[in-house]
Amino acid sequence: MSEIGPAEPWIVREIGAPDEQDGALLQGESVFALANGHIGLRANLEEPHCGGMPGTFLNSLFEERDLQYPEEGFGFPEVTQTIVNGPNGKRIALFVDGESFDLRTGEVRSHERVLDLRAGTLTREVEWVSPAGVPVWLRTERLVSFRRPSVAAVRYSVRAEAELRVESDLVVDEDLPPPREDDPRASAIIQDPFAPVSHNDDVLVLRTRRSGLTVAAAVTHTGAPGEVSAEPELIRWTSTARGEITFEKFLAYRWPAADEVVADRDAAARDGFDVLAAEQREYLDDFWAGADVEVDGDPDIQQAVRFGLFHVLQAGAQAGPHPIPAKGLTGNGYDGHTLWDTETYVLRALTYTHPGCVGPALKWRHSTLGDARDRARELGLDGAAFPWRTISGPECSGYWPAGTAALHVNADIADAVLRYEAATGDEEFMREAGHEILTETAKLWKSVAYFDDEGVAHIAGVTGPDEYTALMDDNIYTNLMAQRTLRAAGLDDEAGRLADSLSIPYAEGRDVHEQAAGFTRLPEWDFTDNEYPLMLGHHYLNLYRKQVVKQADLVLAMMVRGDAFTADEKRRNFAYYEARTVRDSSLSAPIQAVLAAELGHLSLAHDYLAEAALLDLRGGGESGGDGLHIAACAGGWIALVMGFGGMRDHEGRLSFGPRLPPGLQRLAFRLHWRGATLTVTVKRDAVTYTADGDVTFRHEGKEVQVQAGEELTFAIDPIGDIPAPPSPRPPRRHSPPA
Amino acid sequence: MSEIGPAEPWIVREIGAPDEQDGALLQGESVFALANGHIGLRANLEEPHCGGMPGTFLNSLFEERDLQYPEEGFGFPEVTQTIVNGPNGKRIALFVDGESFDLRTGEVRSHERVLDLRAGTLTREVEWVSPAGVPVWLRTERLVSFRRPSVAAVRYSVRAEAELRVESDLVVDEDLPPPREDDPRASAIIQDPFAPVSHNDDVLVLRTRRSGLTVAAAVTHTGAPGEVSAEPELIRWTSTARGEITFEKFLAYRWPAADEVVADRDAAARDGFDVLAAEQREYLDDFWAGADVEVDGDPDIQQAVRFGLFHVLQAGAQAGPHPIPAKGLTGNGYDGHTLWDTETYVLRALTYTHPGCVGPALKWRHSTLGDARDRARELGLDGAAFPWRTISGPECSGYWPAGTAALHVNADIADAVLRYEAATGDEEFMREAGHEILTETAKLWKSVAYFDDEGVAHIAGVTGPDEYTALMDDNIYTNLMAQRTLRAAGLDDEAGRLADSLSIPYAEGRDVHEQAAGFTRLPEWDFTDNEYPLMLGHHYLNLYRKQVVKQADLVLAMMVRGDAFTADEKRRNFAYYEARTVRDSSLSAPIQAVLAAELGHLSLAHDYLAEAALLDLRGGGESGGDGLHIAACAGGWIALVMGFGGMRDHEGRLSFGPRLPPGLQRLAFRLHWRGATLTVTVKRDAVTYTADGDVTFRHEGKEVQVQAGEELTFAIDPIGDIPAPPSPRPPRRHSPPA
Repeated sequence: MSEIGPAEPWIVREIGAPDEQDGALLQGESVFALANGHIGLRANLEEPHCGGMPGTFLNSLFEERDLQYPEEGFGFPEVTQTIVNGPNGKRIALFVDGESFDLRTGEVRSHERVLDLRAGTLTREVEWVSPAGVPVWLRTERLVSFRRPSVAAVRYSVRAEAELRVESDLVVDEDLPPPREDDPRASAIIQDPFAPVSHNDDVLVLRTRRSGLTVAAAVTHTGAPGEVSAEPELIRWTSTARGEITFEKFLAYRWPAADEVVADRDAAARDGFDVLAAEQREYLDDFWAGADVEVDGDPDIQQAVRFGLFHVLQAGAQAGPHPIPAKGLTGNGYDGHTLWDTETYVLRALTYTHPGCVGPALKWRHSTLGDARDRARELGLDGAAFPWRTISGPECSGYWPAGTAALHVNADIADAVLRYEAATGDEEFMREAGHEILTETAKLWKSVAYFDDEGVAHIAGVTGPDEYTALMDDNIYTNLMAQRTLRAAGLDDEAGRLADSLSIPYAEGRDVHEQAAGFTRLPEWDFTDNEYPLMLGHHYLNLYRKQVVKQADLVLAMMVRGDAFTADEKRRNFAYYEARTVRDSSLSAPIQAVLAAELGHLSLAHDYLAEAALLDLRGGGESGGDGLHIAACAGGWIALVMGFGGMRDHEGRLSFGPRLPPGLQRLAFRLHWRGATLTVTVKRDAVTYTADGDVTFRHEGKEVQVQAGEELTFAIDPIGDIPAPPSPRPPRRHSPPA
Repeated sequence: MSEIGPAEPWIVREIGAPDEQDGALLQGESVFALANGHIGLRANLEEPHCGGMPGTFLNSLFEERDLQYPEEGFGFPEVTQTIVNGPNGKRIALFVDGESFDLRTGEVRSHERVLDLRAGTLTREVEWVSPAGVPVWLRTERLVSFRRPSVAAVRYSVRAEAELRVESDLVVDEDLPPPREDDPRASAIIQDPFAPVSHNDDVLVLRTRRSGLTVAAAVTHTGAPGEVSAEPELIRWTSTARGEITFEKFLAYRWPAADEVVADRDAAARDGFDVLAAEQREYLDDFWAGADVEVDGDPDIQQAVRFGLFHVLQAGAQAGPHPIPAKGLTGNGYDGHTLWDTETYVLRALTYTHPGCVGPALKWRHSTLGDARDRARELGLDGAAFPWRTISGPECSGYWPAGTAALHVNADIADAVLRYEAATGDEEFMREAGHEILTETAKLWKSVAYFDDEGVAHIAGVTGPDEYTALMDDNIYTNLMAQRTLRAAGLDDEAGRLADSLSIPYAEGRDVHEQAAGFTRLPEWDFTDNEYPLMLGHHYLNLYRKQVVKQADLVLAMMVRGDAFTADEKRRNFAYYEARTVRDSSLSAPIQAVLAAELGHLSLAHDYLAEAALLDLRGGGESGGDGLHIAACAGGWIALVMGFGGMRDHEGRLSFGPRLPPGLQRLAFRLHWRGATLTVTVKRDAVTYTADGDVTFRHEGKEVQVQAGEELTFAIDPIGDIPAPPSPRPPRRHSPPA
């Protein structure tokens, strides 16, 4: 039995040996995963047969498989892509007087794992007594280098009064557990994806059987004598000694396979684990200096927001020419696909905390424009239609009403381009990629929208963020985001007229906006005695016909296009949709937190913040067993910075309207803005802005500028904590009682 | 090379040997199929390895298979049912001096098949010269007995100056060709569905491997000496002679397997082929006396409407406790499933031409009420939700937006109950089944409809007959048909109020009804350079968002609920929807024919009639290769009787408004009505009604009664032939030039 220890500011600690039965093993493999955006190592225990889901993810190294439909349709994707488990260099077997080190046998005296968010390392310490009664002390340390995208390293140390043997492997095509059948959202499991190409004593070269992608994996060991044996799918280094074995292990991966893999590995081995660890800490010091969020008054949230930012960084840092998947490189959930949450959640946080990796992430989208143009043609549209789910570019979504029909992904991508441009002024990126994304997605909206007899423009038959409502006309989020693209792309006059004419549906009788035309006239959902998520117990036909909202949709529109609503409209809309939103997606709570904060529901915002930020770390169960919810990790940052910090970036202009909930004493966060770092420190009665360069922004609607080195302080008018409007599924109480 | 010969009034003749390459073999197997609703024999040639698709269909003898979804959803059917190819007693191999009779070798001097619509037999005559130069004369004759549901028989005769050997088989699990991959509408092919249970010299007992259904097949031969060998999956009777072999072969099937199969077969063999053939002719004489449609002026239509009625009868006659599939028992298309067209098209024709088989067909629906109630619960609804596709009752539809979402099937079934009750007065049926179907489907509508703030009732998020528009609110066909159920079921006052309050969407600006709320505000489809069917080249996302109509939907509503529209509304609606309807479903043309005739577009009605009636017989290609379009077969009758005869049955009252198109001189048809047979003879200037009992009806809106033996004649006001409104895909011209 294991548990996550009490919150520490920079440390996530697991106490006890994780159990497969209660989900803690899988969950821990994700929580303690290490990655740099290029390589990801799930936190599998070293010993073979440790259970769980082996995971060595090399970004975009995927296999293809056919999609089968009961009834085919034109343009239904015939092939999908699934991330594969790459060559595993984490596996290290230990034998103590010939007995296998295995937590299921003998006695575990202590077992602890520590993820250090400033060091960027995972440490494991075990005291174990073998079945024969020999006490064993084991310590392992891992890192996936932020500085060296292709490199990972392990330091291993074992002591016991016994004959010790270590078998340290680089192994291909481990057996994987069968796919889960209880949840339609589970990923496919691809067994045995690799065919061997070549091997020698320290490099394996492989090729995925169908997608034909090559990978070279190199390994070496230092610090102890050992013998190497090599087969096409296994390199094994064996070392024996009495009393103690300590060694370092260096791994490098290149895909497509390239000879540089040897040099990468050798340079790492030459420098040694300590040097890699020092580089790692230096990299993270830089990151935290411009990204840290300090929270006084709620240690769980303090830890969680850093944990979330750390994983957002791990997902994006070196993603480079590849995408940032929904699960980062922490698991095979969603088949390793990238969805709209990358641009809408993950890149939102990274733009302000680590902008250097946002340009490459958007350039990856740009690199898939060929597929997106083809897809638009296939859908009868102009411009580009980016996929709902993909690894390398083609649409991989197998249920189009909640996939391909969610055309808003194209506006989300364009919005991320505009946000990145505004925050960085990176004109080279715009010339190389940004403008073309804007132009092509604007063309899409021009071809999909149309004017009615009265000259009002509409977008018919699409699905917004709320996946419990599909194929509606004039989804307000889609229309407002398309409007933003059309206005910003500067395509032509017609595009501008179209933007100004797009319908923003409003229900006069109920005096609220409509999530989509006619939404507020649909029958109400019966919220008594529901089990969540509703989708596991209710047919889409039932959900789609009713006023039940899976996740923030209109509420998301009120965050990202807050400029399109008055404060009164926001208040009425928020109350109306709160009463109909069930948060069956982890993408919902952070957005509800932001609007709740804006509207003065401060304790409610705190509760939603906690739901988002603690989901993977302390959410209970194993919801992150197939990988962390990276968007929810970013959601903790969003809820704090955009919620209690009141940060907005409408039309590319930075603004703040900070207010703390009763439970927090202080919130400080840093933002990158056009080369400078702005620090915002919010206390109960005042906010202080400092920066290392000149930054212009609005504070509570008034334009101000903070000069480099200057400190700008404004009093905050105390506002009451407005009670939460009714909700069928209020968040768990986390804020202190009023 | 073969072709269908010139039209003969009661004969369908194929001249030449059918070729597999040009589709004529498959098409002919369907066109010349024999069935009685219980057993169906595709018109496979006798010789083995003759190509095509072997088909011996025993109604509802199905195998199950899993449905695979790229993304699962709650309530998506996990298992589907597929009709299997039963034990084949048609296969008879012939050897001439040891050389195999095979049309691909030697020389075919003549080859002719004749389907006799009054005799109910299929005859084949062949003159063939073997590769060794021996002339061979072969004649086979088949029937599937209407009177004896379990029995089929073959008479076989061969002559040649040679040693002849005949191997006559009852064979199980023949190899089937692989499924077609070019068309998403193609059926699954289930290879090897049977496991042997027992066998002896004249009976095979088998069990489907997964669905566990048992079948017993019995065979015997008379008229020639022979020897029998039997294996678990093959009974072979071998007869040899010099110069001539003539024999009769009798087959009987029982499923579930039952000993009576032997008695069925023995009685048939004892009576002999001639007796069976005489019974068959007698049965058909009875049928035609009350069902025949005479058409003067268009021999192709004359032949086709009889061909269509014959196949409708073959589909329904002895369907008995089983359903009537969309393809009848002529092929495995749609997996052998029954859809809404059974009640809406096939039972419509049968109610008036052969009502005796309609009660059992509706009782089959009633027998599936348990599944339908379960399905309603699964969809969050009350009452019963009948499946979109099924064989034995459970929903087998794998694409719910154009399947389960088409809730109108429940109103279609209720409407068929009301029609049958009105036409027959069969109160016993109503007590046993009819009332419960009405009550349960009325409950469904009560639970699916809801009132808006203004007290207008709506049905949201369903799909109407038009499958190029899905998940819309207030589909007018669905609402009008639900209204009919709610009014007729007599459930309670609330149901009556609901019926009166249901929205009938109307576009004020365009002055037409809307197929569904907002339909006329959708963007228009670009009709230039389209290839049909559109669904094979356009994504549903594109089709659903546009004003493009696959098949009559509002126009169907104007036929079945013509009482809900004024003549002016019909005229405007028809023109509007003609301009947007592409007829990618064979269900469309007959309905358009009916409305065209009502509105005076008489030549257009004639052309649509031809498209429907000639589809399988002279439509070209192999569109019926996997089975005939039984609904289109009924559609020929519908187009003639309801179109040019102007027959309607609104609210259970019979009415006529006959008018002939310029190309026809005379139309006479018979209808069963409450025990009497009414004959309507339409000439250019007058219509005459005669009956063998008293029949009350309306003629041109005026209530009249024809007494038994009386002749009632009314002059017909000559009306002009109003030109067709514009259509993106006008029917091929068939009516004579104006």
